[in-house]
Amino acid sequence: MRLIMKDDAPRQILLTPGPLTTSDATRHAMLRDWGSRDQAFIAMTARVRARLTQLAGGADSHICVPVQGSGTFAVEATLGTLIPPGGKALICINGAYGKRIAKICTVIGRAHEIYETAEDTPPDAARIATLLADDSGITHVVVVHCETTSGILNPIADIAEVTAAADRRLIVDAMSSFGALPLDVGALKAEAVIASANKCLEGAPGLGYAIIEKSALTAAAGNAPSLSLDLHDQHVYMERTGQWRFTPPTHVLAALDAALDQHEAEGGVAARGARYADNCRVLIDGLRALGFETFLPDALQAPIIVTVRMPGDPAFDFQRLYNRLAEQGVVLYPGAVTQEKSFRIGCIGQVFEADMRRALTAIEAALSEMGVHKDGLKPSV
Amino acid sequence: MRLIMKDDAPRQILLTPGPLTTSDATRHAMLRDWGSRDQAFIAMTARVRARLTQLAGGADSHICVPVQGSGTFAVEATLGTLIPPGGKALICINGAYGKRIAKICTVIGRAHEIYETAEDTPPDAARIATLLADDSGITHVVVVHCETTSGILNPIADIAEVTAAADRRLIVDAMSSFGALPLDVGALKAEAVIASANKCLEGAPGLGYAIIEKSALTAAAGNAPSLSLDLHDQHVYMERTGQWRFTPPTHVLAALDAALDQHEAEGGVAARGARYADNCRVLIDGLRALGFETFLPDALQAPIIVTVRMPGDPAFDFQRLYNRLAEQGVVLYPGAVTQEKSFRIGCIGQVFEADMRRALTAIEAALSEMGVHKDGLKPSV
Repeated sequence: MRLIMKDDAPRQILLTPGPLTTSDATRHAMLRDWGSRDQAFIAMTARVRARLTQLAGGADSHICVPVQGSGTFAVEATLGTLIPPGGKALICINGAYGKRIAKICTVIGRAHEIYETAEDTPPDAARIATLLADDSGITHVVVVHCETTSGILNPIADIAEVTAAADRRLIVDAMSSFGALPLDVGALKAEAVIASANKCLEGAPGLGYAIIEKSALTAAAGNAPSLSLDLHDQHVYMERTGQWRFTPPTHVLAALDAALDQHEAEGGVAARGARYADNCRVLIDGLRALGFETFLPDALQAPIIVTVRMPGDPAFDFQRLYNRLAEQGVVLYPGAVTQEKSFRIGCIGQVFEADMRRALTAIEAALSEMGVHKDGLKPSV
Repeated sequence: MRLIMKDDAPRQILLTPGPLTTSDATRHAMLRDWGSRDQAFIAMTARVRARLTQLAGGADSHICVPVQGSGTFAVEATLGTLIPPGGKALICINGAYGKRIAKICTVIGRAHEIYETAEDTPPDAARIATLLADDSGITHVVVVHCETTSGILNPIADIAEVTAAADRRLIVDAMSSFGALPLDVGALKAEAVIASANKCLEGAPGLGYAIIEKSALTAAAGNAPSLSLDLHDQHVYMERTGQWRFTPPTHVLAALDAALDQHEAEGGVAARGARYADNCRVLIDGLRALGFETFLPDALQAPIIVTVRMPGDPAFDFQRLYNRLAEQGVVLYPGAVTQEKSFRIGCIGQVFEADMRRALTAIEAALSEMGVHKDGLKPSV
């Protein structure tokens, strides 16, 4: 047996876009085995689905359909199930996740048009209105709520308004915002909102879900070009039996159930979002005090993940910084926007202001070791 | 917080086709969070893949490509990646999993022919040879190793021989046998063998994998009708970066890594298979001593799961038996073959002879409570 944790090691925190740091209670919920067709597990599935639907404000109008796999699996499943073969998507792109949505549409054979803006530029609702007016073939608008490529917050309320006004359907990829930023499917008139277990809900990775308008889901029979990723089929079977069609990640669902308990106990979306906003503020202030520059202006910055411009000083070595922090239990995330060299530090997961300060202290020490001074932290551009 | 385990409760065992009972060490491996792009997790992914390939006897010729989701996700991913749009599958069916393979081929648009036998009848290799000779368009033969619908063991060596003789490719769904029954991709000349983390390897559910011939995988670029389930794309990215394309179920992979340690410590495939064979023998002998009849003759019975004919006595109530055992921590599995009424009891997972005896004792007590006597356990047919 390999020793997997030392008790005297500092608590490990993942300051990444995911997988994230989870709580002890969430991980301990994985210590029990569940029979996937057993009544207790059926009840857990129903409970989790109801809570997720409620979190999205869709208790009466929408239904939560979970799916095994990562968030991308849930995105592909939702697009394939809800956009019929004759439909067409207008995809707003300002980062890797928007691009991935377009790639999925290409691979699964769904017509689509792309509206791309720079990685630091939100899509413009007026432009979307024009694009919809110009192409009556577009059936769906697809947008990423918070694009973790940069950490930018996209204006989904404005986009929802022009989409509804043009009588088209809206699909929101809320992977990295759901549970921390307010989102109401009723107010947005969203056909679907997609998220996963292991972002702001702080569960373990292994399942995603879409919260889908009931009538749209009912009308989606036979659309999906996949059996595993057919959310209509998953829904029909789940309604009939309470069970998942195929073996669910039982431990991961139990972790999500426990994580939802904690989300509620913390004070729901408002409190979770406030904690992340505090984390983000402490992080950005601290980075700026050290001399770093952030990629986004504060007005566009979601309290999810911060993109930091790569310092110009040749003595700055990101891999060395990464390794030095990793040794101290602080895991960063290499790679970010494509527009310029940068790295990212996440503010989400079971982490607190003290963790952000710990990360900042570790960064400061690493800079000092590398001999990088404040002026050297300005980007080279 | 919901209390999820009572320390004084009897150890829960899942006598099902999966998810299964896992060991404490395997579940405890899920108590740590992992950064999915961190070096330690990259090393774990590489280690698990290498061990799985080696278990299949394919260290030189094959490569293991893992995929998020259940075993069915891995089956769909393998079929979609390896069978080109112009290919055609001959699918051997004698249970629900063979039928599911045909359904996947229909949904993802892969031509296929079905060779179906009764649920208690293995496919006949000579018949397959004839079918292949009659249709030169067939590129692949697909067969389930152990069909858990009934528990039947299919003759994959014979099928592999006629498939290779006809110069066609073989894909084996070894979901419920891999790690417990001998299987050698070299001897079988198998293009791919598919399995999952949570069957005989006794990991947690949440990921599957295929062990694929390198040359076939290289030739499979662009085949898959899905992004999430494209094993070629997953492979190329993993070879280049060591990372998963999309968020992996980190805790589930850690559990599998720990489960593979235990598999090796137990003595590998031979020892794991011997324990299950003992479990199966104790179970069948005990059931027969009580008066039950098994669906399959012993010669066709794999040591994986046992299908029991539903007793004819009207006093026998399966749901009551199920509930009575569940109260005592023994979870059975409702439903099995479609040919006649039956239920199933699994022999796999982290369970031992003593567990089988405990289940038998609980069954005997439940029968006595229901007032069902030995003669009443004969099937009504």
